Amino acid sequence: MNAAWHLVSRPAGLPSAENFEWRESALPALAEGEVRVRSIWLSIDPTNRIWMNDADSYLPKLALGSVMRGGCIGQVEESRDASLQAGDIVQGLLGWQRYYTGPAKGLAKMPPIPLPLSAHFGLLGHIGLTAYFGLTEVAQAKEGETLVVSAAAGAVGSLAVQIGKNLGLRVVAIAGGAEKCRWLLEELGADAVIDYKAEDVAAGLRRTCPEGIDVDFENVGGRTLEAVLGRINLGARIALCGMISQYNATGPEPGPANLANLLIRRGRMQGFIVSDYWGRAQEAAEKLIGWHLAGRLKYRLDVSEGLELAPAALLKLFSGANQGKVLVRVGAETLA
Amino acid sequence: MNAAWHLVSRPAGLPSAENFEWRESALPALAEGEVRVRSIWLSIDPTNRIWMNDADSYLPKLALGSVMRGGCIGQVEESRDASLQAGDIVQGLLGWQRYYTGPAKGLAKMPPIPLPLSAHFGLLGHIGLTAYFGLTEVAQAKEGETLVVSAAAGAVGSLAVQIGKNLGLRVVAIAGGAEKCRWLLEELGADAVIDYKAEDVAAGLRRTCPEGIDVDFENVGGRTLEAVLGRINLGARIALCGMISQYNATGPEPGPANLANLLIRRGRMQGFIVSDYWGRAQEAAEKLIGWHLAGRLKYRLDVSEGLELAPAALLKLFSGANQGKVLVRVGAETLA
Repeated sequence: MNAAWHLVSRPAGLPSAENFEWRESALPALAEGEVRVRSIWLSIDPTNRIWMNDADSYLPKLALGSVMRGGCIGQVEESRDASLQAGDIVQGLLGWQRYYTGPAKGLAKMPPIPLPLSAHFGLLGHIGLTAYFGLTEVAQAKEGETLVVSAAAGAVGSLAVQIGKNLGLRVVAIAGGAEKCRWLLEELGADAVIDYKAEDVAAGLRRTCPEGIDVDFENVGGRTLEAVLGRINLGARIALCGMISQYNATGPEPGPANLANLLIRRGRMQGFIVSDYWGRAQEAAEKLIGWHLAGRLKYRLDVSEGLELAPAALLKLFSGANQGKVLVRVGAETLA
Repeated sequence: MNAAWHLVSRPAGLPSAENFEWRESALPALAEGEVRVRSIWLSIDPTNRIWMNDADSYLPKLALGSVMRGGCIGQVEESRDASLQAGDIVQGLLGWQRYYTGPAKGLAKMPPIPLPLSAHFGLLGHIGLTAYFGLTEVAQAKEGETLVVSAAAGAVGSLAVQIGKNLGLRVVAIAGGAEKCRWLLEELGADAVIDYKAEDVAAGLRRTCPEGIDVDFENVGGRTLEAVLGRINLGARIALCGMISQYNATGPEPGPANLANLLIRRGRMQGFIVSDYWGRAQEAAEKLIGWHLAGRLKYRLDVSEGLELAPAALLKLFSGANQGKVLVRVGAETLA
């Protein structure tokens, strides 16, 4: 039997458990070119919220009634496609379900790594590559520069902070709450932190970036981005990775009132998506695994045990309750 | 005798004639390292408004009482610096005055060109290089793409439209008024025009860019930029050249409510200033002069006769009364 969370209504503002419905069904037979994959890890990401909207984004919108879209790591159980065979570990948009039955096309066979499978989501994959290429390619971060990372205790943010340090930048981390800030400062090596729950971000940036900001790894948008724009140096680069502050907005929100600073400071703001860099995944993975094994790049998982908890795991992202990469363990990592 | 316009108060909103005071004074003697330059052409640009503010920008703020800052072409009359000699044609921030007496350092000796001296401002110099490098370098405009140019009947905009055509792009020009639009369409070769006085810009962009926008040469900002952001294609580039809609704002104005589109469409928005490209002036000048002599790049001058008219010439820029490059003829072009 399969079990799945289906998207049955679209949220206005924050998503809720009522947007999803749990359905069980018999496993269908495989057609030619299809595979069956047992899901092991389901990745929960801010972008999942975008997928719930009644609008195309970088992916087509999801029809109501569909299995909720989600990125997973799983193991092939049966295959009727020459590219995959039983036992292979694959990653792809398997959805919020125990078993994916569908085209093999679009699934990526994962190389073996000297780490648990969950590292594909916690350290590598879209999370790690987003942080790595966002800093190195999009933002062209350089040794000695001052880097600001917002949502710095999140999955991508916490890697961006550490990659920034490994690249020789001075890193200022913005996060919410004393414990997250302590973790960033004491365990991840941030040079300074701003607790946005305790301090105005603009004031915090004046305090921690007396010589201005050269690079911003932006995960939040809104007022946070406005505060950053207020202190950018000549030639600053803003890598737009996410705008989590905007995803639950029910109407248009005003953009930064000081966007003219981007002009005056000759700055660059650039949106990006990790899929533009899939072709260079190996290069990033080698760096990330190397730093991790050398003790210079930590990752933390925030694991919800069981597919039943997927909607609750999504909500954590928006309440700021998570620390590290949010994952749902759908099935055992023990491999056949 | 010298005569000069001094900045005696700062505008709140639109500048006015009262911000300036006409003063005459005897010419001072030259110190070692100084030159005296007779001004011929004074360039009037939107950025002059920024220089009137009580704030540093890409240049230090101007103290009240100073001669108003302005870019000029003039001829050296006397020199006590080895780098320049009487008769040389120079360009620099000579100010709103008949005679500049000051350091030779910072003045650029101009090469001879097969065109009137005014072409240094109408076709070449900061105007031409801004349009040329904004499109080719900042926006990386490519043949076959759709380009939008705002303030398209202005000095920089009208060159950007034609350079875009010469580079093989489809060009949509935004300007105010039927006559400007006719000029852009019939004389400068724009593929489509939007008269913002007669049509909502967002609606106009839907009409003229059914397949979206690849490149935006942005001179206006505000609502115009927001309308552009609403229709950008994947990987679009926005070259932020100016934000004339914002320069007279008396308080912060909301930024674009749809800035998240830059993220979703993986676009890039980049502020720039022509001085970053001075080192490549010769390369651009060759292209621009070549296109002009081949009849593929026109420029229009909007000349005010006499230094006395400088404040009025500045106001034209913000009322949209000008068509082409605004210049003040300070002295005769007849050379000694």
